[in-house]
Amino acid sequence: MSSTQTFKIAAIPGDGIGTEITQAAIQVLDKLAEVDGSFKFEYTNFDWSSKAYKERGWYMPPDGMAQLQKHDAIYFGAVGWPDVPDHISLWSLILPIRKDMNQYVNVRPTRILPGTRSPLSSCQSDPSTLDWIIIRENSEGEYAGQGGTTHENSPHTIATELAIFSRVGIERIMRFAFETAKARPRKKLTMVTKSNAQRHGMVLWDKVFYEVAEEYPDVEHDKMLVDAMTVRMVNNPESLDTIVATNLHADILSDLAAALSGSIGIAPSSNLDPTRKHPSMFEPIHGSAPDIAGKGVANPVGAFWSAAEMVRWLGQGKLDGTADKLMQAIENVTKAGVKTRDLAGNSNTKEVTEAVCREIGI
Amino acid sequence: MSSTQTFKIAAIPGDGIGTEITQAAIQVLDKLAEVDGSFKFEYTNFDWSSKAYKERGWYMPPDGMAQLQKHDAIYFGAVGWPDVPDHISLWSLILPIRKDMNQYVNVRPTRILPGTRSPLSSCQSDPSTLDWIIIRENSEGEYAGQGGTTHENSPHTIATELAIFSRVGIERIMRFAFETAKARPRKKLTMVTKSNAQRHGMVLWDKVFYEVAEEYPDVEHDKMLVDAMTVRMVNNPESLDTIVATNLHADILSDLAAALSGSIGIAPSSNLDPTRKHPSMFEPIHGSAPDIAGKGVANPVGAFWSAAEMVRWLGQGKLDGTADKLMQAIENVTKAGVKTRDLAGNSNTKEVTEAVCREIGI
Ligand SMILES: CC(C)[C@H](C(=O)O)[C@@H](O)C(=O)O
Ligand SMILES: CC(C)[C@H](C(=O)O)[C@@H](O)C(=O)O
Repeated sequence: MSSTQTFKIAAIPGDGIGTEITQAAIQVLDKLAEVDGSFKFEYTNFDWSSKAYKERGWYMPPDGMAQLQKHDAIYFGAVGWPDVPDHISLWSLILPIRKDMNQYVNVRPTRILPGTRSPLSSCQSDPSTLDWIIIRENSEGEYAGQGGTTHENSPHTIATELAIFSRVGIERIMRFAFETAKARPRKKLTMVTKSNAQRHGMVLWDKVFYEVAEEYPDVEHDKMLVDAMTVRMVNNPESLDTIVATNLHADILSDLAAALSGSIGIAPSSNLDPTRKHPSMFEPIHGSAPDIAGKGVANPVGAFWSAAEMVRWLGQGKLDGTADKLMQAIENVTKAGVKTRDLAGNSNTKEVTEAVCREIGI
Repeated sequence: MSSTQTFKIAAIPGDGIGTEITQAAIQVLDKLAEVDGSFKFEYTNFDWSSKAYKERGWYMPPDGMAQLQKHDAIYFGAVGWPDVPDHISLWSLILPIRKDMNQYVNVRPTRILPGTRSPLSSCQSDPSTLDWIIIRENSEGEYAGQGGTTHENSPHTIATELAIFSRVGIERIMRFAFETAKARPRKKLTMVTKSNAQRHGMVLWDKVFYEVAEEYPDVEHDKMLVDAMTVRMVNNPESLDTIVATNLHADILSDLAAALSGSIGIAPSSNLDPTRKHPSMFEPIHGSAPDIAGKGVANPVGAFWSAAEMVRWLGQGKLDGTADKLMQAIENVTKAGVKTRDLAGNSNTKEVTEAVCREIGI
C-alpha cells in the first residue's frame, strides 16, 4: 500500500489577473497530483489583496507570517492595484514575505517556448539561442528598504535610498549561482554589476564573485556591467547561460529577458529559502495587469511554469519527473497553438488551462 | 566682411577606440567648419587616459577642471582599460567632470539610421517606429558617489551605496524633459521610476513629476516602472517618444535603446549644463572597446552624431542647419551602405569618416 504525501500550500491570489491565474494554476496542480497519485495539495486561501486593504486597512494580519510558516510552500498570484500606491501594496505583502521567509534566492528561467516567437529577428530560426536562468539576489541590496526623506514639503527636500550589501549575503547568492551553473550543460556563469559607477557595494560584489569562482574551476565565468548586459542580451543571446545579479539589476534584466523570449506572461519565478526552514514562494513575474483583469484572457503559462518549479522544489529531487511532465504539457499546448493574445494566439485563460490539463491526463 | 567665430574645444580622447573616434570626429568637425565658413574650432588635446595614469599615477592634474573651464565645450572619446579598475578610471575622469561642470542633463537620442537594421522583427518594415530621446539625470541619484564599507576584510563586511535625490535636482531635470517633449512633434513624455520597491527617493521622483506636469498641460505624460519599461521598449517601441529617468535607470535604458536601434556604436550623448556657466561635454555612449581597439574598425557614427549635437549646442539656435547637415551626411553614408562591422557593413573607421567628409563637402 502506497502512502500519499500532502503538501500544504498557502495560496495568495492577490489582485487583478493574480486571482485568475492562481485559480488556473490550482486546477493544473490538482490534475497533476491526481494523475501522479503519490501526492496531493491542500490549500489555504489568503485574501491578502489591495481590494481587502481598501476595505479593512491591512494586507496581512499581524500573525500573517506565522500563518504562512505552517505551509510547505506559498503560491503567489500578483499584487498591486491603481487605487493603492505601489510602494504601500508591495511593502505590505510581497517584499516582507521574501525577507521574513528568508527567501534570499529568486530563480528566473527564460526560454522561447515551442510555437512562440521571440521579438528578436536573430532568434527566429533557432529558438534555442535564448536559454537563460537568472539568479536574483532577493534579500538585500537596493531592496534593503532603508533610506528616508529630509525637509519634506520644502523646496529643499532630500530623499535617499540606501542599498546594503553584505559579504554573507553576496557569498550565499554567488554559491547558489555557481551551483546552478555547474548543474547545467554549459557550466557558464555571467555576473552583472555596476562597479564602475558604484564603488562600494558593487565592488564588494565583484570581489566576492572572483573569490567564490575559485571554488568552481569547472564553471566558466565572466563579468558584465548592467548597461552593457542589456546590449549583450539583445545582440548575443546565445553567449549567455546562467546569470547572477543584484536585486534591482536582476529585476530589470529578468523583465527584459521575458520580453525577449516572447512574453512577460510566460515567465516564472521561485523565491527560495535554500535552508528550507521557511516555505519558499512561487509566482509568475508579471503583475496584476489592471488593463486585462476580469476578462479571462490572462496568460496562465507563467503561473503553470511557476507551479512546475514549486513541484520540483517540494519533491526535493523525487518529483522532477512530475515537474517535467507539467513543463512538457505546457510546451505541447503552446506548440499546438493554444495560446493567449500576448503570444499571438486567440485562446483565453480557460482554454489554455483545459488544454494543459488534457495533456497532463494523457 | 564676415567674422569667423572660434569655438575652443577641450578634446579628451581617452582610451582604446576613444582616441580613434575622437580623431575621426575632429576631421569631420573641421570639414563642417570649412564648408560653413562662419566658425572654426580650436582644440586643446588632453592626454588624460588610463595609459597616462599607469605611467604617472593620475588622470587629471589638480587644475584639470580650471583648464576645461577655459573652453566652450568638451569632446570626450571613452575612458576605461582592463589594467585599471573601472571605478578608479571613471571616478578620476568622466564622473567628476559631469559633476564639477554642472552637467546635470544627459541627452541620449535613439533612432534607426537609414540603411541599418534593428534587431527587432517589428521594426523591419518601418524603422520610424523607434524614435526616442532619453533625458538622463546626470548629477545625483545612484551616482551621488556616497556609500562605504565597514568590517573590510572580515567575513561580516557590509558595503553600502547611497542614492541621493533632491527636489531641486529632480525639478530641474523634469523641466528639461518636459521642454524637450514639448518641442517634439508628439509632445509625449514617459517618466521611469522604481517607486514600488524604493519608497523614498523614487517616490519623490513621482511626486515632482506630477507637479511639474501641471505646468505642461499640452504634454501627454505617463509613468513606467523601470523593469516594465524594458518590456515596453521591446514590444511597443512606437508608443514611446521622450523618456526621463534617473542616472542609473537611464544608463541601463539608453544602452538597451542603442542596441534596439541597431548598434551601441551609433549612439550619441550630450552632457549639458543648461545654465551655460560651464562647458558641456559630448561623447558617444560606447566605451573604449579593448577587443577592437587599435584595429581602425571602430564605428565613428556615435562620435559624429555627438559632434553634431555639440555644434547645435554651441550655435545656440544659429547652427542648427549646420548640425542637420552633418546628420544628413551621416544618414546618406549609412544609407549608401558605408558602414562598420557592427552595422553589418565592411567599411573601416577611415572609410566611413572620409565618406561623411565627402557628403559634407557636396
Ligand atoms: C512587484 C515588485 C516589487 C517586484 C520586484 O520589483 O521585485 C516585481 O517587479 C518582481 O520582479 O517580482
Ligand atoms: C562609463 C560609465 C561611468 C558611464 C555611466 O555609467 O554613466 C557610461 O556607461 C555611460 O553611459 O556614459
